[in-house]
Amino acid sequence: MTAPRLTPLAARLPDTVPFVGPEAQERQLGRAFRARLGANESRFGPSPRAVAAMAAAAAEAWMYGDPEMAELRAALAAHHGVTPAHLIVGEGIDGLLGMLVRLTAGPGDAVVTSLGAYPTFAFHVAGYGADLTRVPYRDDLEDPQALLDAARQTQARLIYLANPDNPMGTWHDGAVIEAMVDALPEGSLLVLDEAYSDLAPAQALPRLAMDDPRVIRLRTFSKGYGLAGLRVGYALAAPALIRAFDKVRNHFGMGRVAQAGAMAALADQDWLTRVRAEVATARRRIGDIAAENGLAALPSATNFVAVDCGRDGDFARAVLRGCIDRGLFIRMPGAAPLDRCIRISVGTPDDLDVLAEVLPQALAAARA
Amino acid sequence: MTAPRLTPLAARLPDTVPFVGPEAQERQLGRAFRARLGANESRFGPSPRAVAAMAAAAAEAWMYGDPEMAELRAALAAHHGVTPAHLIVGEGIDGLLGMLVRLTAGPGDAVVTSLGAYPTFAFHVAGYGADLTRVPYRDDLEDPQALLDAARQTQARLIYLANPDNPMGTWHDGAVIEAMVDALPEGSLLVLDEAYSDLAPAQALPRLAMDDPRVIRLRTFSKGYGLAGLRVGYALAAPALIRAFDKVRNHFGMGRVAQAGAMAALADQDWLTRVRAEVATARRRIGDIAAENGLAALPSATNFVAVDCGRDGDFARAVLRGCIDRGLFIRMPGAAPLDRCIRISVGTPDDLDVLAEVLPQALAAARA
Repeated sequence: MTAPRLTPLAARLPDTVPFVGPEAQERQLGRAFRARLGANESRFGPSPRAVAAMAAAAAEAWMYGDPEMAELRAALAAHHGVTPAHLIVGEGIDGLLGMLVRLTAGPGDAVVTSLGAYPTFAFHVAGYGADLTRVPYRDDLEDPQALLDAARQTQARLIYLANPDNPMGTWHDGAVIEAMVDALPEGSLLVLDEAYSDLAPAQALPRLAMDDPRVIRLRTFSKGYGLAGLRVGYALAAPALIRAFDKVRNHFGMGRVAQAGAMAALADQDWLTRVRAEVATARRRIGDIAAENGLAALPSATNFVAVDCGRDGDFARAVLRGCIDRGLFIRMPGAAPLDRCIRISVGTPDDLDVLAEVLPQALAAARA
Repeated sequence: MTAPRLTPLAARLPDTVPFVGPEAQERQLGRAFRARLGANESRFGPSPRAVAAMAAAAAEAWMYGDPEMAELRAALAAHHGVTPAHLIVGEGIDGLLGMLVRLTAGPGDAVVTSLGAYPTFAFHVAGYGADLTRVPYRDDLEDPQALLDAARQTQARLIYLANPDNPMGTWHDGAVIEAMVDALPEGSLLVLDEAYSDLAPAQALPRLAMDDPRVIRLRTFSKGYGLAGLRVGYALAAPALIRAFDKVRNHFGMGRVAQAGAMAALADQDWLTRVRAEVATARRRIGDIAAENGLAALPSATNFVAVDCGRDGDFARAVLRGCIDRGLFIRMPGAAPLDRCIRISVGTPDDLDVLAEVLPQALAAARA
């Protein structure tokens, strides 16, 4: 009675996961966090219209969702000025990234990202056995030229870049991204993760011809729209690439409740406008709290702020630990030199009161 | 400006999808179906407690779901008398099947299923490049001995069997499955799809040691629990195999709304008991309607009934077409000799009134 074998690739994958959730930390701590500012969730919540739509759809949850997601794709296409053929909806950007890697990169293929960039992308690249090259950030920004150079050297299939960036919150002007697309090596696809685009200034968004086969843009309802717990992301790309997702995706993976919630959220752009204002206010307050503690907040075009703790990664990790132990859930970048920072999601005034209380204590403890 | 290449495997995958949804058919027909009896959804709906839980969770959808799904896994483990380490939750059985194939079978590996069995399993096997052998049904039942023989001949990694079966609704006694596990060839994993187990008689469920590394059981909230539109399935297996899913799964793929709905549905076993009674009543009525039309309904342990149209596949396809054109959404098996049948999901009395009205018309048209 022997256990069936995993594939050689699956057998050699590590047991590590991209992120440990706050719930697991709460179970370990034995108590709930006082403030949940670690996962860049939208503390201001989803549109009440989206909440109502999900509640109404709940009673109809006995029906599978439309596997073609026709209404949602039509609404998104209208929103972005493209056709539904330019657009696929999936189980969050995470799910779409997994499918994209599967479609384009396998053992022996090269993929390029930045050292300290989104770990879930690296998780998928490893999961499909491709070779990942990581280039350093430059001045706390992902470095388009270094990414292009590495892609050219390795003949990379994929180049991942988040703009605005996670975990740093920094951003490039859209013109920089446009120039990057123009300079892409033959055969490389730019994977442009725009999870935070709904919160970014307009000039951070490149103008790209969506029939260009060399770029795919990833968007989500998890950030600006406040629906992280619903799992709806989408990709914008040339129709030929979008069609390829149909060859591998979980066709009934987007349920009726998720589609209804996303439709209603998209229709309530006023809510998004309001969230943007709340996010901007909270970002300023995090900057103020950082300054009160002698720390520098990095500029951010997202719903979080990276705060430079002024020393090395070990120090920032001690500050992080101090925050966690005091009931404040935050995270931090995973690689030097980014890991001199802690990363604090925006929150309500009450949440940020917890930050104002806990941060000086955590700093003092880390310095001691 | 060339399109980036897909992997050789992705490039050669067909554009076909496992199922076309009823919404796509409605768009083509230009009108809504009068009755939706094609996807084995639970027309009796989810528990009102699950609906309330989803509505409540909707307001909290700004938070990601717990990626470890600790509460839901603990509740499911208690329900099944196993530990949470024996259990993984994913985006429906479809999503779990995809991950399982990915973990265990790649190019050059053999997989065995039945000719006419669940097409989404075959979709995933093709999607990961494994070689699929299909053995015939025997007397409208999947044939354990033929599956075992084929697995032995091909050194199959996976043997797929649904019990109760879809699309036929037939079932083996649990003892037959137990004997099949005992006779598994070295290195083969039995993929036991028990999507309809919540509606089956107790004797259809095998007693299996859940530490046995040679079998994985797949369950869902889509059928008995009436939550197809929420996308929650789970797998029961030995902990070593369950842990492997963590290496590749979409860790935040199960949202907060989905986890809350599934928790509440599981807790309302009275609702499931009531659904079982409704399903049994509706199955009998489908049998009566079939008999009134001179057709034989197959025995069923599921929420659907295969009705033998008494001639060949072309005839049954004409009957199916006639039902669709008259506003009745049903489906049928995709391979001979199963395709002499149409497959009708149970429904409310009103739904079955539509069946009683439309079926004789469709039969007459097909005979003409």
